[in-house]
Amino acid sequence: MKKIKIGIAGLGTVGRGVYEILQNQKDLLTLRTNCAFEVVAVASRSNKDFVDPKIKFYNNVLDLAQDENVEVVVELMGGYDLAKELIHDSLRNNKKVVTANKALLAEHGKEILSWVEKYRGSIGFEASVAGANPIVKAFKEGFVANEITEIYGILNGTCNFILTKMKNEKQDYKIALKEAQELGYAEADPRFDVEGNDTAHKIVLLSAIARSSLPNYVQTHIEGINKISIDDINLADELGYKIKLLAVYKNLGDEVQQSVYPALIKNSEKIAQIDGSYNAVLSKGSNFEYNLMIGRGAGGKPTGSAVVVDIVDIACNRNNNFLFNAEGFNLQQTNIINIKKRFGQYFIVFTFDKNNLPKGNVVEQIFANRINPQQVIFKQQNESNKDIFVGAVLTENHIEKDVVDAIDLVDRGLINNIKFIRVEQTNF
Amino acid sequence: MKKIKIGIAGLGTVGRGVYEILQNQKDLLTLRTNCAFEVVAVASRSNKDFVDPKIKFYNNVLDLAQDENVEVVVELMGGYDLAKELIHDSLRNNKKVVTANKALLAEHGKEILSWVEKYRGSIGFEASVAGANPIVKAFKEGFVANEITEIYGILNGTCNFILTKMKNEKQDYKIALKEAQELGYAEADPRFDVEGNDTAHKIVLLSAIARSSLPNYVQTHIEGINKISIDDINLADELGYKIKLLAVYKNLGDEVQQSVYPALIKNSEKIAQIDGSYNAVLSKGSNFEYNLMIGRGAGGKPTGSAVVVDIVDIACNRNNNFLFNAEGFNLQQTNIINIKKRFGQYFIVFTFDKNNLPKGNVVEQIFANRINPQQVIFKQQNESNKDIFVGAVLTENHIEKDVVDAIDLVDRGLINNIKFIRVEQTNF
Repeated sequence: MKKIKIGIAGLGTVGRGVYEILQNQKDLLTLRTNCAFEVVAVASRSNKDFVDPKIKFYNNVLDLAQDENVEVVVELMGGYDLAKELIHDSLRNNKKVVTANKALLAEHGKEILSWVEKYRGSIGFEASVAGANPIVKAFKEGFVANEITEIYGILNGTCNFILTKMKNEKQDYKIALKEAQELGYAEADPRFDVEGNDTAHKIVLLSAIARSSLPNYVQTHIEGINKISIDDINLADELGYKIKLLAVYKNLGDEVQQSVYPALIKNSEKIAQIDGSYNAVLSKGSNFEYNLMIGRGAGGKPTGSAVVVDIVDIACNRNNNFLFNAEGFNLQQTNIINIKKRFGQYFIVFTFDKNNLPKGNVVEQIFANRINPQQVIFKQQNESNKDIFVGAVLTENHIEKDVVDAIDLVDRGLINNIKFIRVEQTNF
Repeated sequence: MKKIKIGIAGLGTVGRGVYEILQNQKDLLTLRTNCAFEVVAVASRSNKDFVDPKIKFYNNVLDLAQDENVEVVVELMGGYDLAKELIHDSLRNNKKVVTANKALLAEHGKEILSWVEKYRGSIGFEASVAGANPIVKAFKEGFVANEITEIYGILNGTCNFILTKMKNEKQDYKIALKEAQELGYAEADPRFDVEGNDTAHKIVLLSAIARSSLPNYVQTHIEGINKISIDDINLADELGYKIKLLAVYKNLGDEVQQSVYPALIKNSEKIAQIDGSYNAVLSKGSNFEYNLMIGRGAGGKPTGSAVVVDIVDIACNRNNNFLFNAEGFNLQQTNIINIKKRFGQYFIVFTFDKNNLPKGNVVEQIFANRINPQQVIFKQQNESNKDIFVGAVLTENHIEKDVVDAIDLVDRGLINNIKFIRVEQTNF
């Protein structure tokens, strides 16, 4: 029986998940593939007591790339420089590579692709987007006969957990974040998640595959959830909307929108109903219409199970096509629009003292007819000062630049704390 | 460039969809695979004007299996005997086979597997379950590191369309069916869909893959939606439930449940919210926890796009593992329980004339303490006779046999038209 000899670099949550799945599901994997999967080496900064002491242990991860016994190097340590070196050396030494490192592929995809082509190797990265959802496989293989025209993703469990908690328990952002940290759903330094970078890495990879192009992280518009207040959530709720951190990709013909931001989504849309730490990817294809996949986006076993998908594909000689869905010289150029060119609805929130506003239509007074409101609500902000109101306008479709300009022109003597949140309609 | 020469047998809705996708997405498919896809022959009972006259046309589908120019035979004509012969002859002549014929695989899987093994061929059947959802690939490849412990599927668009229409428009079954037929969502002879057979074929295939065993259609318990009334739907609605035609697979340890029936599902569960002609598969795995995939279950382009998935896998030399997820001699034996051993909740509906019942607790009177009710409702059945009531009992968990026995023992002098509908909790 064919034996697949695996080296695992990094024994954190996911590394341990992979290790345990390869032990616990040994018989199942062999039944389904006629191959035996064996972890022959691991590398980690500190020894881990759950690893069989008979398995070769390296403190220096780069030693894995030199171990002649290792056929598949599984890079699960994260980060940039060392991970890059490991991947490079592994490919050069003719080893197959599997990684969950979305940051590395999204930001250094061009360099990594050059090594894949130079050494005629392959890199599997199923686990890098949406955890247990086999979404990379779906995009590369399942949707192969489709142009992907739209993607809407909830791709960060930490943010979704915090937003869900804020809404359901009427908590402020800071309190929900603290609880998420205490429960292990958010890191001690949560910026990478709450500022949207992690979500951005994932949509950058999905859209690279979708349009057969290099990942383009630097031009991706990224906003996080750290400026969303409980007031925003409550006001959106009154209009029948939830706020989600949404990754958005839209093929606009010659250009694409590729962005991450908190967005209002109607409660009735399916993606609005993905709560807690689940991930979801809604995509629209030229032939399949809508497809929605929902599953665990994190955790050792769910993500580990996605890492094993790539290992099994290697064992079964399943060619995973090209890294970014076309050969390097065939990769498509695409222009990512500046977000100010976005055309869509906006939710503008602000506070005002009613004594400052002249009589008449409040929205007209404030925005001087530069905004077409579709729905408007006002609420007394608190009991103690009955003259202070919080207002929200849900607009018709506008070019974002016009909304930004209209807000810039608002007389700050009339209102305070003005901001906008985008509104997305997925129609699913 | 590698050229893949395709022969299509059957040019109905799906056959035409495949043909058109291979024309319209030619460049996209080549970009993503470095292969050229060419339809070199088609077979159909009547000539089709949308087919390029330069393509070889056969009236006898079996000629496709003899055409030396054809490498991949795509069987989309449906049915049993002729399709079987075509698949057999194609495999024998060393051609790859792709099919959407769930009925054939589900009912004759053993024989077809024997040919695949004898001739060392392969059969792709992505399009046979849940249309555009790449669910066969997900089960075989994406979930490879998981024991699948539960599957809940909405797998027939016709039934889902009818049930959705009944609920939303308060229509009787017969009227909703008629409208579905007029809109092309139901066949002139709708029995295959509404009696549950089509759904059964699909869950039989999914569960065969899930447990690496032969498809077992004959032991599958199958009920359709043809006995669901608008009263049932309204009563369920009052308790916060929808009625869906559900395919259910549960791994119970030594035995499995494998069945199709209309079931009550709480409105808050995601699978209850799949309306209209969409398909959904909710699965539970030993490592990934829950996964839900939603997409178009029918239609030429969505299903055609799933057929092309298998053609591309062949082009890319992607080994699709074993037909039923293990080599023939390794396939697992499983015992499918008689549905009377099911343990779960039941929704019992009945009518009665209040004058026939003695005073006291109605449910106790009727069921003589053989049923533990969780919720009970009564409604006057109509305005004209105020003594006739329809009642419904949502039970605690019971063994189905006990519910059947309890119903058999009910005094028909007290009540009429008694029936039960199963209740499923997916917990997702």
